[in-house]
Amino acid sequence: MLPDPIRKFIDIASSLPSIGPRQATRLAFYLIQQGKGTISEIMKSLAGLGNLKPCANCFFPHENTKQVLCHICGDPKRNKSIIAIVEKETDLISLENTKKFMGRYLILGDLKKGILESNQKLRLNNLKAFIQKEFGGKAEEVIIAFNPTTYGNLNALAVANELKDYAKKITRLGRGIPTGGEIEFADEETLSEALDKRS
Amino acid sequence: MLPDPIRKFIDIASSLPSIGPRQATRLAFYLIQQGKGTISEIMKSLAGLGNLKPCANCFFPHENTKQVLCHICGDPKRNKSIIAIVEKETDLISLENTKKFMGRYLILGDLKKGILESNQKLRLNNLKAFIQKEFGGKAEEVIIAFNPTTYGNLNALAVANELKDYAKKITRLGRGIPTGGEIEFADEETLSEALDKRS
Repeated sequence: MLPDPIRKFIDIASSLPSIGPRQATRLAFYLIQQGKGTISEIMKSLAGLGNLKPCANCFFPHENTKQVLCHICGDPKRNKSIIAIVEKETDLISLENTKKFMGRYLILGDLKKGILESNQKLRLNNLKAFIQKEFGGKAEEVIIAFNPTTYGNLNALAVANELKDYAKKITRLGRGIPTGGEIEFADEETLSEALDKRS
Repeated sequence: MLPDPIRKFIDIASSLPSIGPRQATRLAFYLIQQGKGTISEIMKSLAGLGNLKPCANCFFPHENTKQVLCHICGDPKRNKSIIAIVEKETDLISLENTKKFMGRYLILGDLKKGILESNQKLRLNNLKAFIQKEFGGKAEEVIIAFNPTTYGNLNALAVANELKDYAKKITRLGRGIPTGGEIEFADEETLSEALDKRS
Protein backbone atom coordinates (compact mmCIF):
# COMPACT_ATOMS: atom_id res chain seq x y z
CA MET A 1 0.00 0.00 0.00
CA LEU A 2 3.02 2.30 0.26
CA PRO A 3 3.83 4.55 -2.70
CA ASP A 4 6.80 3.23 -4.65
CA PRO A 5 9.22 6.06 -3.78
CA ILE A 6 8.62 5.45 -0.06
CA ARG A 7 9.11 1.71 -0.41
CA LYS A 8 12.31 2.22 -2.38
CA PHE A 9 13.68 4.64 0.19
CA ILE A 10 12.87 2.25 3.06
CA ASP A 11 14.59 -0.61 1.22
CA ILE A 12 17.75 1.37 0.66
CA ALA A 13 17.85 3.11 4.05
CA SER A 14 17.27 -0.09 5.98
CA SER A 15 20.15 -1.75 4.15
CA LEU A 16 22.48 0.75 5.84
CA PRO A 17 24.22 -0.38 9.02
CA SER A 18 22.18 -0.01 12.23
CA ILE A 19 19.10 1.42 10.50
CA GLY A 20 16.13 -0.95 10.73
CA PRO A 21 12.98 -0.92 8.59
CA ARG A 22 11.01 0.85 11.33
CA GLN A 23 13.52 3.67 11.66
CA ALA A 24 13.74 3.88 7.86
CA THR A 25 9.95 4.22 7.62
CA ARG A 26 9.81 6.95 10.23
CA LEU A 27 12.69 8.67 8.47
CA ALA A 28 10.85 8.56 5.13
CA PHE A 29 7.76 10.29 6.51
CA TYR A 30 9.87 12.75 8.43
CA LEU A 31 11.74 13.75 5.27
CA ILE A 32 8.52 14.02 3.24
CA GLN A 33 7.15 16.31 5.93
CA GLN A 34 10.31 18.44 5.95
CA GLY A 35 9.99 18.89 2.21
CA LYS A 36 12.25 19.42 -0.77
CA GLY A 37 14.57 21.93 0.93
CA THR A 38 15.76 19.50 3.60
CA ILE A 39 15.89 16.64 1.14
CA SER A 40 18.11 18.51 -1.31
CA GLU A 41 20.42 19.58 1.52
CA ILE A 42 20.91 15.95 2.45
CA MET A 43 21.47 15.08 -1.20
CA LYS A 44 24.14 17.77 -1.44
CA SER A 45 25.92 16.48 1.66
CA LEU A 46 25.82 12.96 0.22
CA ALA A 47 27.34 14.17 -3.04
CA GLY A 48 30.13 15.73 -0.96
CA LEU A 49 30.94 12.33 0.56
CA GLY A 50 31.15 10.82 -2.91
CA ASN A 51 33.95 13.19 -3.87
CA LEU A 52 36.36 12.18 -1.11
CA LYS A 53 39.41 10.05 -1.88
CA PRO A 54 41.28 7.66 0.40
CA CYS A 55 44.75 8.77 1.50
CA ALA A 56 47.44 6.84 -0.39
CA ASN A 57 49.23 6.01 2.87
CA CYS A 58 46.66 5.57 5.66
CA PHE A 59 43.41 5.28 3.62
CA PHE A 60 41.57 7.91 5.64
CA PRO A 61 39.26 9.85 3.27
CA HIS A 62 40.36 13.38 2.37
CA GLU A 63 39.38 16.13 -0.02
CA ASN A 64 42.77 17.37 -1.14
CA THR A 65 42.49 17.55 -4.90
CA LYS A 66 46.15 18.26 -5.58
CA GLN A 67 47.80 15.60 -3.45
CA VAL A 68 47.36 11.96 -2.63
CA LEU A 69 47.95 12.27 1.12
CA CYS A 70 45.58 13.29 3.92
CA HIS A 71 46.52 16.12 6.24
CA ILE A 72 48.05 13.71 8.79
CA CYS A 73 50.23 11.78 6.35
CA GLY A 74 51.10 15.05 4.59
CA ASP A 75 52.16 16.76 7.83
CA PRO A 76 56.00 17.02 7.97
CA LYS A 77 55.88 17.35 11.76
CA ARG A 78 54.47 13.85 12.30
CA ASN A 79 56.88 11.00 12.98
CA LYS A 80 56.14 8.56 10.14
CA SER A 81 58.30 5.91 11.77
CA ILE A 82 55.65 5.20 14.42
CA ILE A 83 52.59 3.65 12.80
CA ALA A 84 49.29 2.94 14.54
CA ILE A 85 47.27 0.27 12.74
CA VAL A 86 43.54 0.65 13.35
CA GLU A 87 40.48 -1.19 12.14
CA LYS A 88 38.13 1.71 11.46
CA GLU A 89 38.24 5.40 10.56
CA THR A 90 36.42 6.13 13.82
CA ASP A 91 39.23 4.44 15.78
CA LEU A 92 41.68 6.83 14.11
CA ILE A 93 39.48 9.77 15.10
CA SER A 94 39.33 8.60 18.71
CA LEU A 95 43.12 8.28 18.86
CA GLU A 96 43.60 11.70 17.22
CA ASN A 97 41.26 13.24 19.76
CA THR A 98 43.66 12.28 22.57
CA LYS A 99 46.25 14.63 20.91
CA LYS A 100 48.87 12.24 22.31
CA PHE A 101 49.90 10.41 19.17
CA MET A 102 52.26 12.11 16.74
CA GLY A 103 52.91 9.21 14.37
CA ARG A 104 50.96 8.11 11.31
CA TYR A 105 48.14 5.61 10.87
CA LEU A 106 47.07 2.72 8.72
CA ILE A 107 43.37 1.87 8.48
CA LEU A 108 42.81 -1.81 7.71
CA GLY A 109 39.01 -1.87 7.45
CA ASP A 110 36.52 -4.22 9.12
CA LEU A 111 38.34 -7.28 10.39
CA LYS A 112 37.13 -10.85 10.12
CA LYS A 113 38.13 -13.38 12.74
CA GLY A 114 41.88 -13.84 12.55
CA ILE A 115 41.97 -13.86 8.76
CA LEU A 116 43.27 -10.90 6.79
CA GLU A 117 41.39 -10.26 3.57
CA SER A 118 43.25 -9.69 0.33
CA ASN A 119 42.72 -5.93 0.31
CA GLN A 120 43.91 -5.77 3.92
CA LYS A 121 47.05 -7.65 2.92
CA LEU A 122 47.50 -5.13 0.09
CA ARG A 123 47.35 -2.31 2.63
CA LEU A 124 49.93 -4.04 4.81
CA ASN A 125 52.16 -4.55 1.76
CA ASN A 126 51.75 -0.88 1.01
CA LEU A 127 52.98 -0.15 4.54
CA LYS A 128 55.92 -2.54 4.16
CA ALA A 129 56.95 -0.78 0.95
CA PHE A 130 56.63 2.58 2.71
CA ILE A 131 58.82 1.40 5.61
CA GLN A 132 61.40 -0.05 3.24
CA LYS A 133 61.57 3.10 1.16
CA GLU A 134 61.55 5.63 4.00
CA PHE A 135 63.67 3.88 6.62
CA GLY A 136 65.63 1.32 4.64
CA GLY A 137 64.66 -1.58 6.89
CA LYS A 138 62.54 -1.22 9.98
CA ALA A 139 60.14 1.33 11.39
CA GLU A 140 60.67 2.46 14.96
CA GLU A 141 57.36 1.07 16.20
CA VAL A 142 54.11 -0.43 15.00
CA ILE A 143 51.19 -0.01 17.44
CA ILE A 144 48.41 -2.48 16.73
CA ALA A 145 45.40 -0.54 18.03
CA PHE A 146 42.68 -3.20 17.73
CA ASN A 147 39.88 -3.74 20.24
CA PRO A 148 40.95 -5.97 23.13
CA THR A 149 38.43 -8.66 22.21
CA THR A 150 38.99 -12.28 21.23
CA TYR A 151 38.70 -11.32 17.54
CA GLY A 152 40.88 -8.25 17.99
CA ASN A 153 43.56 -10.35 19.66
CA LEU A 154 43.53 -12.97 16.91
CA ASN A 155 43.76 -10.29 14.24
CA ALA A 156 46.54 -8.52 16.12
CA LEU A 157 48.55 -11.74 16.08
CA ALA A 158 48.03 -12.08 12.32
CA VAL A 159 49.13 -8.48 11.69
CA ALA A 160 52.11 -8.74 14.05
CA ASN A 161 53.18 -11.83 12.16
CA GLU A 162 52.98 -10.00 8.80
CA LEU A 163 55.05 -7.08 10.07
CA LYS A 164 57.57 -8.82 12.31
CA ASP A 165 60.49 -7.98 10.01
CA TYR A 166 59.42 -4.38 9.46
CA ALA A 167 59.41 -2.86 12.95
CA LYS A 168 61.90 -2.67 15.80
CA LYS A 169 58.99 -2.90 18.20
CA ILE A 170 55.39 -4.09 17.83
CA THR A 171 53.08 -3.00 20.64
CA ARG A 172 49.39 -2.95 21.51
CA LEU A 173 47.38 -0.43 23.52
CA GLY A 174 47.62 -0.65 27.32
CA ARG A 175 45.05 -2.71 29.16
CA GLY A 176 43.42 -2.12 32.52
CA ILE A 177 40.58 -0.43 34.33
CA PRO A 178 39.18 2.50 32.30
CA THR A 179 39.14 5.96 33.91
CA GLY A 180 35.99 6.30 35.96
CA GLY A 181 35.53 2.53 35.98
CA GLU A 182 34.82 0.65 39.19
CA ILE A 183 36.92 -2.26 40.40
CA GLU A 184 33.78 -3.94 41.73
CA PHE A 185 32.29 -4.14 38.24
CA ALA A 186 35.43 -4.85 36.25
CA ASP A 187 35.47 -8.32 34.67
CA GLU A 188 38.13 -10.79 35.79
CA GLU A 189 40.12 -10.53 32.58
CA THR A 190 40.35 -6.74 32.83
CA LEU A 191 41.25 -6.90 36.49
CA SER A 192 43.97 -9.49 35.98
CA GLU A 193 45.40 -7.37 33.12
CA ALA A 194 45.30 -4.38 35.46
CA LEU A 195 47.23 -6.35 38.09
CA ASP A 196 49.81 -7.54 35.55
CA LYS A 197 50.30 -4.03 34.19
CA ARG A 198 50.38 -2.24 37.55
CA SER A 199 52.91 0.56 37.80
CA MET B 1 40.38 17.20 11.84
CA LEU B 2 37.50 15.79 9.76
CA PRO B 3 37.24 16.80 6.10
CA ASP B 4 34.48 19.34 5.57
CA PRO B 5 32.15 17.09 3.55
CA ILE B 6 32.21 14.49 6.34
CA ARG B 7 31.53 17.09 9.01
CA LYS B 8 28.65 18.54 7.00
CA PHE B 9 27.11 15.11 6.45
CA ILE B 10 27.39 14.26 10.17
CA ASP B 11 25.74 17.57 11.09
CA ILE B 12 22.80 17.01 8.78
CA ALA B 13 22.37 13.28 9.42
CA SER B 14 22.48 13.67 13.19
CA SER B 15 19.77 16.34 13.00
CA LEU B 16 17.40 13.61 11.76
CA PRO B 17 15.20 11.91 14.34
CA SER B 18 16.80 9.01 16.23
CA ILE B 19 20.17 9.32 14.47
CA GLY B 20 22.90 10.40 16.87
CA PRO B 21 26.32 11.86 15.99
CA ARG B 22 28.00 8.49 16.51
CA GLN B 23 25.67 6.66 14.13
CA ALA B 24 25.97 9.54 11.65
CA THR B 25 29.77 9.28 11.76
CA ARG B 26 29.75 5.53 11.19
CA LEU B 27 27.25 6.06 8.37
CA ALA B 28 29.52 8.65 6.70
CA PHE B 29 32.49 6.29 6.59
CA TYR B 30 30.31 3.40 5.52
CA LEU B 31 28.97 5.42 2.58
CA ILE B 32 32.43 6.64 1.58
CA GLN B 33 33.59 3.03 1.58
CA GLN B 34 30.61 1.92 -0.51
CA GLY B 35 31.46 4.57 -3.05
CA LYS B 36 29.67 6.74 -5.58
CA GLY B 37 27.30 4.02 -6.84
CA THR B 38 25.60 3.47 -3.49
CA ILE B 39 25.61 7.17 -2.72
CA SER B 40 23.87 8.08 -5.97
CA GLU B 41 21.26 5.35 -5.42
CA ILE B 42 20.42 6.88 -2.05
CA MET B 43 20.29 10.33 -3.64
CA LYS B 44 17.85 9.04 -6.25
CA SER B 45 15.59 7.52 -3.62
CA LEU B 46 15.66 10.79 -1.68
CA ALA B 47 14.68 12.71 -4.79
CA GLY B 48 11.74 10.32 -5.14
CA LEU B 49 10.53 11.26 -1.66
CA GLY B 50 10.69 14.93 -2.57
CA ASN B 51 8.21 14.42 -5.39
CA LEU B 52 5.38 13.03 -3.24
CA LYS B 53 2.34 15.16 -2.43
CA PRO B 54 0.04 14.96 0.59
CA CYS B 55 -3.48 13.64 -0.12
CA ALA B 56 -6.01 16.48 -0.09
CA ASN B 57 -8.26 14.52 2.27
CA CYS B 58 -6.15 12.42 4.63
CA PHE B 59 -2.69 14.00 4.08
CA PHE B 60 -0.96 10.67 3.46
CA PRO B 61 1.78 11.20 0.83
CA HIS B 62 1.04 9.84 -2.65
CA GLU B 63 2.56 9.96 -6.11
CA ASN B 64 -0.57 10.36 -8.23
CA THR B 65 0.27 13.20 -10.56
CA LYS B 66 -3.20 13.58 -12.03
CA GLN B 67 -5.31 13.62 -8.89
CA VAL B 68 -5.25 15.15 -5.45
CA LEU B 69 -6.33 12.02 -3.54
CA CYS B 70 -4.30 9.03 -2.34
CA HIS B 71 -5.35 5.52 -3.33
CA ILE B 72 -7.37 5.10 -0.11
CA CYS B 73 -9.33 8.34 -0.35
CA GLY B 74 -9.73 7.80 -4.10
CA ASP B 75 -11.11 4.27 -3.66
CA PRO B 76 -14.89 4.26 -4.30
CA LYS B 77 -15.27 1.06 -2.27
CA ARG B 78 -14.19 2.68 1.01
CA ASN B 79 -16.84 4.04 3.33
CA LYS B 80 -15.91 7.72 3.66
CA SER B 81 -18.45 8.18 6.44
CA ILE B 82 -16.24 6.37 8.95
CA ILE B 83 -13.11 8.37 9.62
CA ALA B 84 -10.15 7.21 11.67
CA ILE B 85 -8.09 10.11 12.97
CA VAL B 86 -4.46 9.16 13.55
CA GLU B 87 -1.40 11.03 14.71
CA LYS B 88 1.22 9.65 12.32
CA GLU B 89 1.48 8.10 8.86
CA THR B 90 2.90 4.97 10.48
CA ASP B 91 -0.26 4.65 12.61
CA LEU B 92 -2.29 4.65 9.39
CA ILE B 93 -0.05 1.93 7.95
CA SER B 94 -0.48 -0.22 11.08
CA LEU B 95 -4.26 0.11 10.89
CA GLU B 96 -4.27 -0.64 7.15
CA ASN B 97 -2.20 -3.75 7.77
CA THR B 98 -5.03 -5.22 9.89
CA LYS B 99 -7.19 -5.19 6.69
CA LYS B 100 -10.14 -4.63 9.04
CA PHE B 101 -10.84 -0.97 8.48
CA MET B 102 -12.71 0.08 5.35
CA GLY B 103 -13.25 3.75 6.14
CA ARG B 104 -10.97 6.70 5.43
CA TYR B 105 -8.30 8.39 7.52
CA LEU B 106 -7.16 11.79 8.66
CA ILE B 107 -3.54 12.24 9.69
CA LEU B 108 -3.13 15.07 12.21
CA GLY B 109 0.65 15.05 12.64
CA ASP B 110 2.71 15.02 15.84
CA LEU B 111 0.52 16.02 18.76
CA LYS B 112 1.52 18.31 21.58
CA LYS B 113 0.00 17.86 25.01
CA GLY B 114 -3.72 18.52 24.74
CA ILE B 115 -3.28 21.55 22.47
CA LEU B 116 -4.09 21.39 18.78
CA GLU B 117 -1.72 23.41 16.62
CA SER B 118 -3.09 25.74 13.99
CA ASN B 119 -2.31 23.42 11.07
CA GLN B 120 -3.98 20.56 12.93
CA LYS B 121 -7.06 22.71 13.38
CA LEU B 122 -6.94 23.42 9.65
CA ARG B 123 -6.95 19.70 8.96
CA LEU B 124 -9.92 19.21 11.27
CA ASN B 125 -11.73 22.08 9.55
CA ASN B 126 -10.96 20.39 6.25
CA LEU B 127 -12.62 17.24 7.62
CA LYS B 128 -15.63 19.20 8.87
CA ALA B 129 -16.10 20.72 5.40
CA PHE B 130 -15.78 17.25 3.86
CA ILE B 131 -18.42 15.84 6.22
CA GLN B 132 -20.76 18.77 5.60
CA LYS B 133 -20.40 18.49 1.87
CA GLU B 134 -20.60 14.70 1.57
CA PHE B 135 -23.16 13.85 4.21
CA GLY B 136 -25.02 17.11 4.78
CA GLY B 137 -24.56 17.04 8.55
CA LYS B 138 -22.89 14.24 10.41
CA ALA B 139 -20.53 11.40 9.56
CA GLU B 140 -21.45 7.94 10.75
CA GLU B 141 -18.46 7.57 13.04
CA VAL B 142 -15.19 9.21 13.94
CA ILE B 143 -12.63 6.86 15.48
CA ILE B 144 -9.95 8.74 17.37
CA ALA B 145 -7.02 6.34 17.04
CA PHE B 146 -4.47 8.00 19.31
CA ASN B 147 -2.09 6.17 21.63
CA PRO B 148 -3.71 5.32 24.99
CA THR B 149 -1.27 7.52 26.91
CA THR B 150 -1.95 10.53 29.10
CA TYR B 151 -1.09 12.84 26.19
CA GLY B 152 -3.08 10.76 23.73
CA ASN B 153 -6.11 10.90 26.01
CA LEU B 154 -5.88 14.68 26.44
CA ASN B 155 -5.56 15.15 22.69
CA ALA B 156 -8.44 12.79 22.04
CA LEU B 157 -10.63 14.92 24.28
CA ALA B 158 -9.65 18.06 22.37
CA VAL B 159 -10.39 16.43 19.00
CA ALA B 160 -13.67 14.92 20.21
CA ASN B 161 -14.69 18.38 21.37
CA GLU B 162 -13.90 19.89 17.95
CA LEU B 163 -15.90 17.25 16.10
CA LYS B 164 -18.82 16.70 18.46
CA ASP B 165 -21.34 18.22 16.02
CA TYR B 166 -19.94 16.36 13.03
CA ALA B 167 -20.32 12.68 13.91
CA LYS B 168 -23.14 10.49 15.13
CA LYS B 169 -20.62 8.54 17.14
CA ILE B 170 -17.11 9.31 18.36
CA THR B 171 -15.10 6.26 19.48
CA ARG B 172 -11.60 5.30 20.48
CA LEU B 173 -9.69 2.05 19.96
CA GLY B 174 -10.44 -0.80 22.37
CA ARG B 175 -8.30 -1.16 25.46
CA GLY B 176 -7.10 -4.27 27.24
CA ILE B 177 -4.41 -6.89 27.38
CA PRO B 178 -2.57 -7.20 24.04
CA THR B 179 -2.52 -10.58 22.29
CA GLY B 180 0.34 -12.61 23.69
CA GLY B 181 0.54 -10.35 26.75
CA GLU B 182 0.68 -11.75 30.24
CA ILE B 183 -1.75 -10.81 32.97
CA GLU B 184 1.04 -11.05 35.53
CA PHE B 185 2.99 -8.29 33.81
CA ALA B 186 0.10 -6.05 32.73
CA ASP B 187 0.05 -2.70 34.52
CA GLU B 188 -2.90 -1.88 36.78
CA GLU B 189 -4.41 0.61 34.36
CA THR B 190 -4.44 -1.88 31.48
CA LEU B 191 -5.83 -4.61 33.70
CA SER B 192 -8.62 -2.45 35.06
CA GLU B 193 -9.49 -1.40 31.48
CA ALA B 194 -9.53 -5.08 30.53
CA LEU B 195 -11.92 -5.80 33.40
CA ASP B 196 -14.18 -2.90 32.46
CA LYS B 197 -14.25 -3.96 28.81
CA ARG B 198 -14.66 -7.69 29.40
CA SER B 199 -17.02 -9.41 26.97
